[in-house]
Amino acid sequence: MSLPTAAYATHGPTESLQPFSFERRDPLEFDVLIEILYCGVCHSDLHFARNEWGMSQYPMVPGHEIVGVVRAVGSRVTRFREGDQVGVGCFVDSCRSCPMCLSGEEQYCDQAIYTYNGPDKVMGGLTFGGYSTQIVVDENYVVRVPDSLPLDAAAPLLCAGITTYSPLRHFGVREGQSVGIIGLGGLGHMGVKFARAMGTHVTVLSHSPSKQADAERLGTHDFVVTSEPEAFEAHANRFDFLLDTVSAAHDLGPYLSLLKPDGRMVLVGLPDPSPLSAFPLIFRRRSLSGSLIGGIRETQEMLNFCGEKNITCDIELIRMDQINEAYERMLRSDVRYRFVIDMATLR
Amino acid sequence: MSLPTAAYATHGPTESLQPFSFERRDPLEFDVLIEILYCGVCHSDLHFARNEWGMSQYPMVPGHEIVGVVRAVGSRVTRFREGDQVGVGCFVDSCRSCPMCLSGEEQYCDQAIYTYNGPDKVMGGLTFGGYSTQIVVDENYVVRVPDSLPLDAAAPLLCAGITTYSPLRHFGVREGQSVGIIGLGGLGHMGVKFARAMGTHVTVLSHSPSKQADAERLGTHDFVVTSEPEAFEAHANRFDFLLDTVSAAHDLGPYLSLLKPDGRMVLVGLPDPSPLSAFPLIFRRRSLSGSLIGGIRETQEMLNFCGEKNITCDIELIRMDQINEAYERMLRSDVRYRFVIDMATLR
Repeated sequence: MSLPTAAYATHGPTESLQPFSFERRDPLEFDVLIEILYCGVCHSDLHFARNEWGMSQYPMVPGHEIVGVVRAVGSRVTRFREGDQVGVGCFVDSCRSCPMCLSGEEQYCDQAIYTYNGPDKVMGGLTFGGYSTQIVVDENYVVRVPDSLPLDAAAPLLCAGITTYSPLRHFGVREGQSVGIIGLGGLGHMGVKFARAMGTHVTVLSHSPSKQADAERLGTHDFVVTSEPEAFEAHANRFDFLLDTVSAAHDLGPYLSLLKPDGRMVLVGLPDPSPLSAFPLIFRRRSLSGSLIGGIRETQEMLNFCGEKNITCDIELIRMDQINEAYERMLRSDVRYRFVIDMATLR
Repeated sequence: MSLPTAAYATHGPTESLQPFSFERRDPLEFDVLIEILYCGVCHSDLHFARNEWGMSQYPMVPGHEIVGVVRAVGSRVTRFREGDQVGVGCFVDSCRSCPMCLSGEEQYCDQAIYTYNGPDKVMGGLTFGGYSTQIVVDENYVVRVPDSLPLDAAAPLLCAGITTYSPLRHFGVREGQSVGIIGLGGLGHMGVKFARAMGTHVTVLSHSPSKQADAERLGTHDFVVTSEPEAFEAHANRFDFLLDTVSAAHDLGPYLSLLKPDGRMVLVGLPDPSPLSAFPLIFRRRSLSGSLIGGIRETQEMLNFCGEKNITCDIELIRMDQINEAYERMLRSDVRYRFVIDMATLR
């Protein structure tokens, strides 16, 4: 037996998303059946839908910023019960035995199974994501969303939230440090909120002066317009930590030069390659790192932090049938700061 | 009064080095007068002599791998006395009050004064380096060379040695870890010796299979020929730490992919810019860092370590008047692994 599920899917890199139906598995003994209420729209959904990273398989049901309510649990589930408010992020399984899984960093497991476009080991074929009415996931890959958070605005925490929270925590950003957030989009606006809530001195670096008012509303202390000729020289050696959320290609060297000695810049935006000069790394022993979402334990920690600090995303709620238009608007950066699909519009 | 000093200098980016004479200051109260016995020839001497980094001033007396014997000390010197075997590295002063100086990382002080091509605050004009018969340096910027080490083979420890020792120590490389040394030149051969002496499992990565025998003699456990098509795939996710000593431009991405999750690659070779892909950084949370020589305290620690472990450089001793030929041979990588000038040939 299995569960008929309504969804939106794309059938090829140049296709629009359109209505689609498929079967979810009946919950196995450790599984949780989740009615999806909201699903965030991540820029990587668009990259995957259009095969921009060369690894897409079709049909594809995107969506990995999933929140909803538990409607059934398998016989051996202990962590959740019907009615719980829960979330699912970018992956739904992993090997559970490699060093990364054992240390709670399942996102770096070689065999992590992505929420969509991965192999579905039970049903065969592909995993299908959150642009759908329900999902069945092993309880170990489900997190609890604090009751105090509005579910729609919490959805993007599952990817945009953890993507920005994790590097700030993992690399030990501390109260009182000087933190720069490069780029003010879906990721950047969460970076500002987290960095502020962690007690750092926050600066938004953006090429667009028009974003200053919004950046201040979101909590930044300072704003640097990077398109101004003197910007990089004026702020050299200033930051302990930079979170680079920009996905367009850009020269990293000038940004690295803004770090103090031993400072670190972390890429989360997957920019296209740009030439990197070794000088700003070597002459102040600076570091450039990458970071990919976060593990289940840290995702739960992030959600709890959001519950305590009352942090959610700034969103624009859309109907499922607006998804193709939303992709186009996302390409024009015409969203402040994340589209979230109201899944009731698909039922 | 001042001290007439014989040297070799260059007078412009396209000039050869030639005999030169100038005056050293008489030792001030905290100064040490050192008779220079040997001076290593670093590739950056050549970069500076030919103004390849665009910051050269002339006349220039290169040389920052200086060893010799103390011949006189100022009235308030406490750490050295006549007859001591000592060394001077890449800098001879710094501000002594910034956070980097206070933490013993003077090499990152904004006002560090390089051993040559820097401002000479006492005599005016430029500092002159180790291609000379004597040098006068504040005792706080002088290190002790263990008596057990041969002075000629110890000279390059002052730059090639500390440049490779410091990142291994600073970034916490531990016994049993898997360490790769990229490139087997003046820096790389020291990296192999240090990584081996620190108890790591050492692999040399070189595009040239002809270096394997030498790499093994120097202490490597393993050797990867990076010009072989399968090399990068075969060794993916293998190393805890990579020390990249290559100064020619090269694509960093394939090397980063050799690191385990959370692994780090450190650049010490100042390669020209190459396009950097964010993927290998992001998908395994790897880090790329730079490192510049080391502070005085760590340089002394490195020399003591060399004394205990009997580590020196593999050198070819040359006469002062062979320096121009040595530069040409260095450009052809025709040196195993460091030229050292016997300063007796200048007297």
